[in-house]
Amino acid sequence: MTRVGVVGATGYTGLELIRLLSRHPKIKIAALTAEKNVGQPIWKIFPSVMGESDLVCQALEVESLSRTCDFIFTALPHKAAMEVVPEFLEKGKKVVDLSADFRLLDPQVYAEWYEPHIAPGLLKEAVYGIPELHREEIKKARLVANPGCYPTSVILALAPALKNHLIDPKTIIADSKSGVSGAGRSVVLSSMYAEVSENFKAYKVTEHRHTPEMEQELSRVAGKKIVITFTPHLVPMKRGILSTIYATLQKPLSEKEIYGVYSKFYGNEKYVRLRPPDLLPSTADVFGSNYCDLGWKVDRRNNRLILLSAIDNLVKGASGQAIQNMNLMLGLEESLGLDLVPLYP
Amino acid sequence: MTRVGVVGATGYTGLELIRLLSRHPKIKIAALTAEKNVGQPIWKIFPSVMGESDLVCQALEVESLSRTCDFIFTALPHKAAMEVVPEFLEKGKKVVDLSADFRLLDPQVYAEWYEPHIAPGLLKEAVYGIPELHREEIKKARLVANPGCYPTSVILALAPALKNHLIDPKTIIADSKSGVSGAGRSVVLSSMYAEVSENFKAYKVTEHRHTPEMEQELSRVAGKKIVITFTPHLVPMKRGILSTIYATLQKPLSEKEIYGVYSKFYGNEKYVRLRPPDLLPSTADVFGSNYCDLGWKVDRRNNRLILLSAIDNLVKGASGQAIQNMNLMLGLEESLGLDLVPLYP
Amino acid sequence: MTRVGVVGATGYTGLELIRLLSRHPKIKIAALTAEKNVGQPIWKIFPSVMGESDLVCQALEVESLSRTCDFIFTALPHKAAMEVVPEFLEKGKKVVDLSADFRLLDPQVYAEWYEPHIAPGLLKEAVYGIPELHREEIKKARLVANPGCYPTSVILALAPALKNHLIDPKTIIADSKSGVSGAGRSVVLSSMYAEVSENFKAYKVTEHRHTPEMEQELSRVAGKKIVITFTPHLVPMKRGILSTIYATLQKPLSEKEIYGVYSKFYGNEKYVRLRPPDLLPSTADVFGSNYCDLGWKVDRRNNRLILLSAIDNLVKGASGQAIQNMNLMLGLEESLGLDLVPLYP
Amino acid sequence: MTRVGVVGATGYTGLELIRLLSRHPKIKIAALTAEKNVGQPIWKIFPSVMGESDLVCQALEVESLSRTCDFIFTALPHKAAMEVVPEFLEKGKKVVDLSADFRLLDPQVYAEWYEPHIAPGLLKEAVYGIPELHREEIKKARLVANPGCYPTSVILALAPALKNHLIDPKTIIADSKSGVSGAGRSVVLSSMYAEVSENFKAYKVTEHRHTPEMEQELSRVAGKKIVITFTPHLVPMKRGILSTIYATLQKPLSEKEIYGVYSKFYGNEKYVRLRPPDLLPSTADVFGSNYCDLGWKVDRRNNRLILLSAIDNLVKGASGQAIQNMNLMLGLEESLGLDLVPLYP
Repeated sequence: MTRVGVVGATGYTGLELIRLLSRHPKIKIAALTAEKNVGQPIWKIFPSVMGESDLVCQALEVESLSRTCDFIFTALPHKAAMEVVPEFLEKGKKVVDLSADFRLLDPQVYAEWYEPHIAPGLLKEAVYGIPELHREEIKKARLVANPGCYPTSVILALAPALKNHLIDPKTIIADSKSGVSGAGRSVVLSSMYAEVSENFKAYKVTEHRHTPEMEQELSRVAGKKIVITFTPHLVPMKRGILSTIYATLQKPLSEKEIYGVYSKFYGNEKYVRLRPPDLLPSTADVFGSNYCDLGWKVDRRNNRLILLSAIDNLVKGASGQAIQNMNLMLGLEESLGLDLVPLYP
Repeated sequence: MTRVGVVGATGYTGLELIRLLSRHPKIKIAALTAEKNVGQPIWKIFPSVMGESDLVCQALEVESLSRTCDFIFTALPHKAAMEVVPEFLEKGKKVVDLSADFRLLDPQVYAEWYEPHIAPGLLKEAVYGIPELHREEIKKARLVANPGCYPTSVILALAPALKNHLIDPKTIIADSKSGVSGAGRSVVLSSMYAEVSENFKAYKVTEHRHTPEMEQELSRVAGKKIVITFTPHLVPMKRGILSTIYATLQKPLSEKEIYGVYSKFYGNEKYVRLRPPDLLPSTADVFGSNYCDLGWKVDRRNNRLILLSAIDNLVKGASGQAIQNMNLMLGLEESLGLDLVPLYP
Repeated sequence: MTRVGVVGATGYTGLELIRLLSRHPKIKIAALTAEKNVGQPIWKIFPSVMGESDLVCQALEVESLSRTCDFIFTALPHKAAMEVVPEFLEKGKKVVDLSADFRLLDPQVYAEWYEPHIAPGLLKEAVYGIPELHREEIKKARLVANPGCYPTSVILALAPALKNHLIDPKTIIADSKSGVSGAGRSVVLSSMYAEVSENFKAYKVTEHRHTPEMEQELSRVAGKKIVITFTPHLVPMKRGILSTIYATLQKPLSEKEIYGVYSKFYGNEKYVRLRPPDLLPSTADVFGSNYCDLGWKVDRRNNRLILLSAIDNLVKGASGQAIQNMNLMLGLEESLGLDLVPLYP
Repeated sequence: MTRVGVVGATGYTGLELIRLLSRHPKIKIAALTAEKNVGQPIWKIFPSVMGESDLVCQALEVESLSRTCDFIFTALPHKAAMEVVPEFLEKGKKVVDLSADFRLLDPQVYAEWYEPHIAPGLLKEAVYGIPELHREEIKKARLVANPGCYPTSVILALAPALKNHLIDPKTIIADSKSGVSGAGRSVVLSSMYAEVSENFKAYKVTEHRHTPEMEQELSRVAGKKIVITFTPHLVPMKRGILSTIYATLQKPLSEKEIYGVYSKFYGNEKYVRLRPPDLLPSTADVFGSNYCDLGWKVDRRNNRLILLSAIDNLVKGASGQAIQNMNLMLGLEESLGLDLVPLYP
C-alpha cells in the first residue's frame, strides 16, 4: 500500500480525493492537512465520511508529512502550492498538484495571468496531467500539474480536431458552463444559494485564468500558436461542466466522418465516451464519474463544427484525474479507484 | 375597460398573462379557454391565483368569445393558432398570437421549419412584435406575432451592432441558455425534475425552430441576409434566458464605444437596460420583470464582440411583451400592467 | 407622499422593502443606509433595481435621517436594532423594526434567548405586528415589532384553533421548512449553494429563537401559557416557508367544521387564503406575494389536526408584512403597495 | 457469478440496481426487461451507463428469464408485481420485490390501502426486507418484500426507542420529506421541474400508502398495535429522505442515554450511523450511499423525543437495500456491491 498525503483536505477537491482514495485498493490515506482545522477529525467537517475515515487534520509540515507519506496531493490555492511543492520534491516525494501553479510552461505567461512565479525552474519539469494526451511523460514524472476543470473539458474536445487539422484554429470559441463547486469551498457571496439558484450568468468574460492553460495545450496539439475566446458561466447546480465549442471546419465534414477521426484518436481510452449525434452529452450522465463525454454536430449552413463536452468538474475535472495521474506515476493500473458508474438521476 | 380573452389559459404563458392582466388598469379579463379544463375555475388549476380570479375555463368557440371579448391573446401551440387566428380577425378582433405561426414572413420558410401554412395570406400582414424595433407598425396592426423567447434575447442584443455595421454578420454565433418553463407545461420526460435538476445540456443543436425567426429579423436590421449558428441549452431553473453572442468586430472598438452605439440605439427604451462591463447581465436580475438586460465585453486578442442578454422568458420573452404589444395596438400607455420590479433573490 | 428610510438596505429584507416601496403610491423612499456600502448606488449592489432607484447608500446617522425621513424601517440584525430604534422614536419617528428586538414583551425571556435588553422600557409599548391579530393596536403604535418569518406562518395557522379551543394546547408541534433567504444575506458556509442544493436537514432543533415569540403570541390567543415543540428545517429553495403543525383535537371535528371556524375567524382578511382539503398549501403558490395560505386535514385515526401554512418568508414573513404595518400606522389603505399576484411557476 | 434479472429496468430503481450490480463482484446482470423499450440497449435510455452495459431490454417473459437468470429483482409498479412474482417463485427463483405488493402481512390491510390481493398466500411467507431487523429470516427467504423508502427511514429511527419502551407509542408523528425521484420516473405534471423547483408542499396527508407498512413493522417491534400520524412532503431535490419523528418520552432521558440505547441496538450495523447531537443528519451526507444516518434531540420543555433520519431513497430506500437483501438470500457477504462513500457535495 502506498501511503498518500492530502494537503488541503477540507476543500471540495480534497474531500473528493478522500472519497475516491478510500476505495482505492493499493492506497492508504496516511495524512490530511488543513490549517484551520488542526486536530479535528475529518468526519466532523464532512459528516458524509463518518465511519469511513478516522483521520484527524494536521498542520502542513513538510518534514513530518514526508516521514508518513510516500506520495503527495496538494489541493491548495494557487501560490500556496508553489511554496510547498518544491520542498516535497526535495524530500523525494512524487506530487500531483491540483492548483494552477505548475500548469504553464512559460513563467512569463504565469506572471501575466497570476503573479511572478517563485519556482520557475520546475515549470519545464512539471507534466500537464491529461493522461489521454501525455500518458508516457506522466508515468515518468515527479511532478504532475493537474489540469483545471474547464481546460480538461475543452482540451479533450478539441485535441482530435486540431491534431487532424479539421478546424481553423483562429475561429475557436469555447462557451463553458460550470456548476458551483468549481468555485471551491471558499465562503463568498457569489457562491451563496440565494445568489446562485434560479440564476444563470457569465463571469470573468475574456479574463478567466484557465485561458492560457487551454491555449498552451491546444497549441501543442496543433503545432502552432492558438488564441481562443473562452467564456465561463455559472450554472445553478453543484457539479458538472458542459463546454460548447465552436470552430469553422477547414472543409465540409459529416458527423460520421468526425466520428471516424475521434474514434481513432481516442481508441480504447477508458474515460472518453463518444456520444452519437442523437444523444449529445449532458452533465448528469457523467455525475460522480471520471468520464468525459464528447459529442458534436455540424452546422452545415455555416460550415461550423459544434463540439460538446461534459465532465464532472470534481472528478475528471480535478480529483479523479489526479488519481488517474497518481496511478500512472506509481506504475499502477490506471483505473484503480476510478471504477465509478455515474449516479443518475 | 377593454375586455380581453386568453385562448389557451392553462399553459405557463397563459397563466403569466392572467397574472399581469389582473393588475392592468385598463383591462378586464373576460374569458379564458382551455379545452381540457372546461368548467373548471382557473384557481383550481393554478391555486396561485386563488382570490385573484373567479374565471372559469371555457371551450374555444370563436363565436361566443367574439361576443364577450374585444381583444384576443392566443397562447396555443403552433398550428393550433393558425387554425383559429384568422377567424378572430374576421370577427374584427385584434389579436396577439404567442405561437410561432405568424412570425415568419415567408410561407416557404415556415413550411421548411414547421409544416405547410394554412393561412399564408396573413404572414405579410402580421407584425413581428418587438416594440423596440417595430413600434409604429405594431400600433397599426390587427395581428401581432409575439416573438419567441430566444429570438427576443438574441435580436435585442444584436440589433444595434448590426444596424451600425459593427460586426461581421457571417460570424454570428448565439449560445443561449434557458430555464425549463420555456418548454411549456406539456408533461414530458425531458421536463421532469429528476431529469433537469443538477443537469445541463444542449438540445436541438443546429435544428431549433427559433433560428429562422432570428435570421429574418437580424437580416431586416442588417439590410442583408444573415445566417447564424444558434445553440439552445437547458438550465436547471424555472425562468430566464441568457444568451451569449459572439461576432467578429469589423474594426477594433472599446466597450465604451459600443456603449455609445447601444445607448443611442435604445435611447429611452424603458425595458432595455444597458449594463456596465463590470456588472454583466444575469437572469436573476430580470426575474419576473419585462426587462431585457444587455451587456458586452470585447475580446481584444481575437477582435470579437461578446454580447450578453438576459430576459425572463415568460415576461419579456412571452406574456409581458405580448401585453406591451397589446397596449400599443389599443393606443394605451405602453407600460400599463408591466410596471414590474424584478424579484430578487 | 410619506418619506421613508430603510435602515439596513443591503440585506434581503432591505431589498424586498425597496422592491415593494418602489411601487407604493403614497411612499417615497428617501434614504437607504448600509454601513459597508456608504456612497454606493443601491443598483450597483442589487442590479435588479437598475433603473428603478438612484438612491445611494449612506451611513446610519439618526440626526440626518430624521431630517429626511418621516418613517423608518429598521432591517438590522438583532441587538443593532435596539441600539438605534429608541433614538428614532425620540425624534418623533414611527418605526417598524424587522429584527427580533422588540417582539418579546418580557425582557427576561429576551435575555434568556438572546442577551440582556438595553431598552426594556420599550418592550411593553411595541406592538407585535401581525395585523390579522393586532390591527387596532398597530394603528396607534409608534413602534411595531415585525414578526419573524416562522412565527408568522405558525401563529396565523394556530390562532383560530386556539381561540376556539379546538385543540389541546399541550400537544402542539410545529415542523417548519424554510428556504435559504430566511438566513439572510450573511456570507456563511451553511448558506452556500454547494452545501444547500440537493440537501435537506433540520437545524437548531429545540433551540431556535423564534420559539418564545410563537409561544408568547399563541399564549395570548389561547388565554393560557403555551409551550410548543418547534423544529425548523432548511429547504433547497430561495424563498418560502411551509409549516406543518400537529395538535390533538379536543373533540372530533371534520375538515368542514374546521373551515367554519377558520372562515369566521379570518372573515375578509385579504392576505389569508383558506385552501380546500384537496388543494393544500404549497410555497410556490404564494411566491412573491403577501398571502398566507392555510389548509388542514384531520387524522381521524389519531384524532389529530394537521395544519399547513405557506408564506413567502420575505413578503408576509418580513417586508410585505412590514409595509402592511406601516400602512396601518400611517392611516393608509392597508393593501397599498402589496397588491402582488404570486409568481408561478 | 449469480445471474440476475432486473424486471422493470427503466425506472429509477431499475437504473440504480444496474448502477450498483455493475460493480458487484459476484453478480452478472443477465437480463433487463422493459415493456416499452424492447430491443433498445439500456445505454440509449440511460446514457449514464454507456460503456458500462451492453444489455438490451427484453419483454417480461417468465419462461425465458427463468432460463437465463438465477435471481430476480422485480422493480414494477404495485399490482404488476404480484402478477408475476408467484411465477418466478414457482420456477424456483428467489425474488426481491421492490413494489408494495408483499410488504403487508394481512391481505385485508392490503385491500384497504391498495386493492384486493391476488396472491394472498404469499403474504405470510414474504419477509419484510430490513436486514437490521429481520436478517435471519431474510437469509432463509425465497421472497423478500423490499421496504418503501419512507418506511425504511421511519422504522430504523423508531425501532430502538419502541423496543426499549422509551416512548409513548400513541404519540408518534412522522413528518417526512422526500426528493422527487421517490415518485419514480412516471411522467406526471406534479413531478415536472417547473412545478417542483422553488416549491415545498405536503401531499397525501393522512392517506399515504406507506402508513400501514410502517405501523405493521413498528407494532411488531413494540409488541403492540401502533397507529401513527404520517405526513409526506415533496422537497425540490432529486434524492434523499429526511424524516423528523416526534414522540413523548415515557420518562425524561438525556441525548446521551438515548445514544446508549441506540448504540446497543444497532451495535456493529454497517449501514446505520449514529450522529452526535451537534451534527444532526442531513440528506446530502448519505447521497448515493446505503447509509441511514440517525440523530436525535430531547425537547426537555415538552418531554418529547425528536428523531431525525436520513437516507438516499434510491439506495437504502430501494435498490441498495434490495441488494443487501439479495446478498443475504444468496449467502454472500452482506455489503458486496454496496461499498459506497456518499457523494458530497
